[in-house]
Amino acid sequence: MTDYKQNALKLHKQLKGKISINLKGKLDSVEALSTYYTPGVGAVSDYLAQHPNAGKLYTWTNNLVAVISDGSAVLGLGDIGPTASLPVMEGKCMLFKHFAGIDAIPIVLNVHSEEEIINTVQALAPSFGGINLEDIAAPKCFAIEEKLKKILNIPIMHDDQHGTAIVVLAGLINACKVANKNLAKTKIVLVGAGAAGVAIAKLLYEFAPTIDLILVDSIGIINKTRSDLNDTKKTLLKITNKNNLSGSLTDALIGADIFIGVSKANLLTEKMIKLMNNKSIIFALANPDPEIIPTIAKKAGAFIVATGRSDYPNQINNVLAFPGIFRGALDNNVKKITTQHKLKTAQAIADLVNEPSVENIIPSVFNNQLVPTISRLII
Amino acid sequence: MTDYKQNALKLHKQLKGKISINLKGKLDSVEALSTYYTPGVGAVSDYLAQHPNAGKLYTWTNNLVAVISDGSAVLGLGDIGPTASLPVMEGKCMLFKHFAGIDAIPIVLNVHSEEEIINTVQALAPSFGGINLEDIAAPKCFAIEEKLKKILNIPIMHDDQHGTAIVVLAGLINACKVANKNLAKTKIVLVGAGAAGVAIAKLLYEFAPTIDLILVDSIGIINKTRSDLNDTKKTLLKITNKNNLSGSLTDALIGADIFIGVSKANLLTEKMIKLMNNKSIIFALANPDPEIIPTIAKKAGAFIVATGRSDYPNQINNVLAFPGIFRGALDNNVKKITTQHKLKTAQAIADLVNEPSVENIIPSVFNNQLVPTISRLII
Repeated sequence: MTDYKQNALKLHKQLKGKISINLKGKLDSVEALSTYYTPGVGAVSDYLAQHPNAGKLYTWTNNLVAVISDGSAVLGLGDIGPTASLPVMEGKCMLFKHFAGIDAIPIVLNVHSEEEIINTVQALAPSFGGINLEDIAAPKCFAIEEKLKKILNIPIMHDDQHGTAIVVLAGLINACKVANKNLAKTKIVLVGAGAAGVAIAKLLYEFAPTIDLILVDSIGIINKTRSDLNDTKKTLLKITNKNNLSGSLTDALIGADIFIGVSKANLLTEKMIKLMNNKSIIFALANPDPEIIPTIAKKAGAFIVATGRSDYPNQINNVLAFPGIFRGALDNNVKKITTQHKLKTAQAIADLVNEPSVENIIPSVFNNQLVPTISRLII
Repeated sequence: MTDYKQNALKLHKQLKGKISINLKGKLDSVEALSTYYTPGVGAVSDYLAQHPNAGKLYTWTNNLVAVISDGSAVLGLGDIGPTASLPVMEGKCMLFKHFAGIDAIPIVLNVHSEEEIINTVQALAPSFGGINLEDIAAPKCFAIEEKLKKILNIPIMHDDQHGTAIVVLAGLINACKVANKNLAKTKIVLVGAGAAGVAIAKLLYEFAPTIDLILVDSIGIINKTRSDLNDTKKTLLKITNKNNLSGSLTDALIGADIFIGVSKANLLTEKMIKLMNNKSIIFALANPDPEIIPTIAKKAGAFIVATGRSDYPNQINNVLAFPGIFRGALDNNVKKITTQHKLKTAQAIADLVNEPSVENIIPSVFNNQLVPTISRLII
């Protein structure tokens, strides 16, 4: 086992979890007890019973997001279930607090069907000010998010979809600037039709329907002649592969400007990169091991390479987007995260890089302008 | 509106909720991010996927209790729903943290049937180390707790039932000591057959089946000839009213040693107290206004009076019991809170009063021996 894994295990065991509860007041007197709890709290509950919309003013929900998962698509580990997914969700809660000052709590679910997850989240919703869906497998994640957005009146976002799509778009905006390409007129090959892939495809289409986007899954190019497509992939045919190409990833890459991988390690070869257009842009986002190692991609002629990792330049990381989005939604009482919010956030992230260059297309996750800049846009 | 109510409203609005999330580590470097979150956290999740019983060692669940309510029986306010109940649940979470160092989070549910509440709590259970059910109406609270105890492998307690019963028993043990009565041979009239009343009846029977216990509801004495009894009340006939008395509260009180009210304000009159035995013991626990004001009860001849309030002597308060019980269950990996745990806890609380007297039958909620003493018994 590599060192970083041993360190993580050791530290997690030492800390016994990474978050805890803090009290905003002291309970050291009878007076405090009578104010924070009975009988004083009865007056607050009585008031809320008569003013049901005032809940956020008197409870922690004004600053509270639930990070909800059924553990069915966790990192590169797959369907490991709720208990094993909990360390990831606790980590996500740390990110919410550290980067946006948002209280977040992990809720992992022991139910896995679309209907059960929707029912459970609906039942819990009054406990929270917002909901971040996390690591829920495709394709059920699409229907779950869509239905919950319809029935609940608080901001909901499946971060694996939209957080990733927003940051990918931000990176592409700057990468194209550096490569002197017009993103709206590029040919893009996107590999992976899971949560992230589908959301990236949709957001790129919303950004510019003129993009020539080819979606590739484990079978090959997704096109009209395939009979094995699920409903999600069928829908995507309307916004991808306008020339109805067929064949393999290699076939797709001929003359492409951009490769986006949200698939698996070592899928992309030097030979494939050599088939691409000049100044090719490679977003190899599989975690922890990318579709191609950046140094190898560069050697094969790639102009710009981005990954999901912090130890290479150009890290495409959801934490650039979701803290500011939820900060804005909570502060500005926004009930739905819309396509316009996502497009504006992507542009704002891109604009925070003063002088984009080959190894600097995206801001650092520690850029302290991210949250204030993005949160102002969520209105 | 009285001052204490205005103060509570003002303070709650100022604080915008009473709890927040605290991080156990700093996220200010790439190394920290890589350890607490990806890629490091992946090693922890991978380990837990292979060692499903190790979850508590690596996550905050080892110290985490959910305070779960559907808001259907909140304080004296009744069925005010989840949002309005949230300030009470947040307050309860403060008590958990302040008195026992336990992280607790409020989960309020927008579902109200027995089946939906059970399904929701079951779905959430992997997120927590224990579950405190709170302010769920009778009679559904009985089946909900019973079923959840069967299907889940973490400690669960409906505090309105068992917390109250334990502290009442603790108070009675000392009150009888002071009054020189043998509790096992007393005649007790218990008014109120909701969550607290039912649990008190059951625990008194477990303590001493020889107690002559008469249960009274809003109709009168619960006896075999009544045709309006729900299943819970029918079951209680087996352990109460062995002489099959009928009639009103006044009839029941003739010759009684002890009155316990978990009912409503001003139900007990001076005349009724005068019908009771010498050295009568009055537990007038309706909140915030007791069944009789202690000074009036004393004037009518009551020997010992206890209430739920902090501004009279002898406060019967659940916070004497539940922090220590959950502290012990979490620390000692106890999966079920049993009758023996409850009886031992009651005796331990009683024993913490060195020299019980008429105005000192129960420890202060700030007695710092409560949690360590009780938690050692939950094994």
